[in-house]
Amino acid sequence: MSIPATSEPIGFASLGSDEFKALFRGHPGGVAVVTADAGDGPVALTATSVASVSASPPLLVFSVSQLSSASSVLVRADTVVVHLLDADDLSLARLGATSGVDRFADTDRWSRLITGEPVYADVRAWVRCAVIGRMDAGGSTVIAAHALQAQVTRDAADGGALVYHDRSWHRLGAHSRIELSA
Amino acid sequence: MSIPATSEPIGFASLGSDEFKALFRGHPGGVAVVTADAGDGPVALTATSVASVSASPPLLVFSVSQLSSASSVLVRADTVVVHLLDADDLSLARLGATSGVDRFADTDRWSRLITGEPVYADVRAWVRCAVIGRMDAGGSTVIAAHALQAQVTRDAADGGALVYHDRSWHRLGAHSRIELSA
Repeated sequence: MSIPATSEPIGFASLGSDEFKALFRGHPGGVAVVTADAGDGPVALTATSVASVSASPPLLVFSVSQLSSASSVLVRADTVVVHLLDADDLSLARLGATSGVDRFADTDRWSRLITGEPVYADVRAWVRCAVIGRMDAGGSTVIAAHALQAQVTRDAADGGALVYHDRSWHRLGAHSRIELSA
Repeated sequence: MSIPATSEPIGFASLGSDEFKALFRGHPGGVAVVTADAGDGPVALTATSVASVSASPPLLVFSVSQLSSASSVLVRADTVVVHLLDADDLSLARLGATSGVDRFADTDRWSRLITGEPVYADVRAWVRCAVIGRMDAGGSTVIAAHALQAQVTRDAADGGALVYHDRSWHRLGAHSRIELSA
């Protein structure tokens, strides 16, 4: 069956912001926390926009909204730490997504790399990156970064992977895997 | 517990590509198929890098590797259609991820919008976008695009959401949701 060209679109010329939000509410994403310190204190932000773009060289991207309290630091930092979370890291994911709290109040929870960046303890994996490109996109900045150094605490298959979807958190595992016929 | 600064990193100076791939194999992603036609025939590509970056204006990003057969068209297209897939769209997700096949051979499966872009039928949702920015990142291009027009066939909660993780497909639903205590 083909979609008739006359089917009613949601918007025209530019999609409305509410329609756009509804579209992406239905699009699941892996969960990361990005940290940095550009010289005036650590910041952290939970992001579902982290994606690998190239393995050689090892590059990733993520986006930061100017609406985020961490934005002003993240857009000028030369290096960042991207924490790739699993379901055991849910409390950190929620911390980085909560407004108006000091995300570094619990000093047992984080430390600094010898290069100075703040890093949270016990996460599935983290990767320290050098920012290599920035692109303005509306009220956000898309940041490309080169992976310099990483530490993996848990394999992908160990705990359940963590996904954010439709304003809920989900855990992946054997219970969610789709078995392919043929 | 804090991570000792002397803990062993996987790499130094630049992370190796194998280590980087392993890191992101463990990072789940929503699944999309991006189509375009820059004047010399339709192309399609399955991508897990699609993310919303701004709701007002409605902007999204995705990345395209030069290794993809669709790359040369996608990086010069003025408009693209981003299909946001759910588990009912698994066969399309696999089609757009399979090398060496004609992704438009089945003419019952797709049509063209009145503006010319190829669009697959029966997907959860699609959004037609105008490309507004491109950023080179290694052998890939990160593309920012403004949402112009969308059609939603199924709500986020209807079928199960589709996630790619650790070389497997997963379906989200009540069975995968994490219940939060307080």
